[in-house]
Amino acid sequence: MNPPVETKIVLVGAGNVATQLGMSLQEKGFSIVQVYSRTPISAEMLRNRLQTKFTHDLRAIDRNADLYLFSLTDAALPEIIKNFPPVEGLLVHTSGSLSADIFKEGKSVRQGVLYPLQTFGKLRKVSFDALPLFIEANHPEDEDWLEALALTLSNRVIRLSSDRRKQLHLAAVFACNFTNHLYALAAELLEKQNLPWDILLPLIRETAAKAADSHPRAVQTGPAIRGDQNVMNIHLEMLKENPAMQELYRMLSRSIRQIELRQK
Amino acid sequence: MNPPVETKIVLVGAGNVATQLGMSLQEKGFSIVQVYSRTPISAEMLRNRLQTKFTHDLRAIDRNADLYLFSLTDAALPEIIKNFPPVEGLLVHTSGSLSADIFKEGKSVRQGVLYPLQTFGKLRKVSFDALPLFIEANHPEDEDWLEALALTLSNRVIRLSSDRRKQLHLAAVFACNFTNHLYALAAELLEKQNLPWDILLPLIRETAAKAADSHPRAVQTGPAIRGDQNVMNIHLEMLKENPAMQELYRMLSRSIRQIELRQK
Repeated sequence: MNPPVETKIVLVGAGNVATQLGMSLQEKGFSIVQVYSRTPISAEMLRNRLQTKFTHDLRAIDRNADLYLFSLTDAALPEIIKNFPPVEGLLVHTSGSLSADIFKEGKSVRQGVLYPLQTFGKLRKVSFDALPLFIEANHPEDEDWLEALALTLSNRVIRLSSDRRKQLHLAAVFACNFTNHLYALAAELLEKQNLPWDILLPLIRETAAKAADSHPRAVQTGPAIRGDQNVMNIHLEMLKENPAMQELYRMLSRSIRQIELRQK
Repeated sequence: MNPPVETKIVLVGAGNVATQLGMSLQEKGFSIVQVYSRTPISAEMLRNRLQTKFTHDLRAIDRNADLYLFSLTDAALPEIIKNFPPVEGLLVHTSGSLSADIFKEGKSVRQGVLYPLQTFGKLRKVSFDALPLFIEANHPEDEDWLEALALTLSNRVIRLSSDRRKQLHLAAVFACNFTNHLYALAAELLEKQNLPWDILLPLIRETAAKAADSHPRAVQTGPAIRGDQNVMNIHLEMLKENPAMQELYRMLSRSIRQIELRQK
């Protein structure tokens, strides 16, 4: 059942996810036979790191690969799929929010999903070892095969339907994208005081580590959970020249109280 | 100028900050001569870890200490201060949001602040080594002395006025308290799907680490920064049974676009 290392993979897309997934698969011995990208520059980068062929012409796609791994923005994917040549290999995308049958409705096409629950940047190499990978395929034998492939990358592979994966992706937006934005807002407040933003780093790290040690609900601190209206009023007054941030403060503080009530 | 290790310290309060600050000061050789707490149980815990005397009677406070370190909630502090006996030692609180002259207006009392920019829990021991400590005192010689004391704990000691410290504390609410709440909301979404919340941990850790590597504004990802209205609409639809969380999603997504525009 294990996919042989001769498995031939075409990467469709050359962004951060494609690059890091491609490098990790290559490290495990799989052959990345080709990389497709609309934009020559990013593919150039990927090719140099992956040492493989590349094309920006969909008509030149290698038709004999076993796996076509689509890592593009959700917005770009439909157009690429529409113009993708017919192939017999398994079509898999890496999106959290798109269904498994995005390539073609029904069972006529072998299709699936390999969704890594992680944020990928250009600079940092991501370790796949303990990374949760969520898989799905429309044919059971393909799902088994995809699971085996995913297990060569990570010890945490979970089969998940498209509907549940969408919920997971929504949770990731809160835990990652919105969290990073709160860091950015905090940084902005400090920079206005001519304080370096990175004095927040021990706090940011400890906040993440503390939640990991127990549960975020169990370790909530701050004026909102204490019900310290006095401090909250001072903070709201301090934010009066930034009404959007002030409203965000008010809503997040209210939400902290609400989640506590929901859990009781 | 260095405070001698014979410096006698009374801790007023026995919560998380007092416990961890007390333990770290004791490790550096300072004498914690007494702990005051309103609630016997938490002080019991602190006493057992600190091996010192404790009291829950303000009249029994040791009047001969060099430093009185007040670590109480902002709400509890005024009442304790009102009933605190007159002493000659330096009165210092650890609050981010209270002014340095909370003990008594003017210069008749030696008073100051030692604010550690960190979140303190009951379970995890916090390292003070590289922790930013913000200090202030109303007499220059006390500020020098307090700086020297703080430098025995951390290599990052910064003198900061009460007004700027309040801005710092507000930033910390965003980077820590609100961030932790986003983790809690994400956990709640997963638990509704019967998925263990801790599958988010690699994502949470990487989000913190990625921001630390460059700047949170430079590494923002997700549907809002991409302007992917399609995904955002799907997410808003998924949150329709939780209007408060839906509104939070909308506001945070809008805020992500706004901060990008502000920086241009």
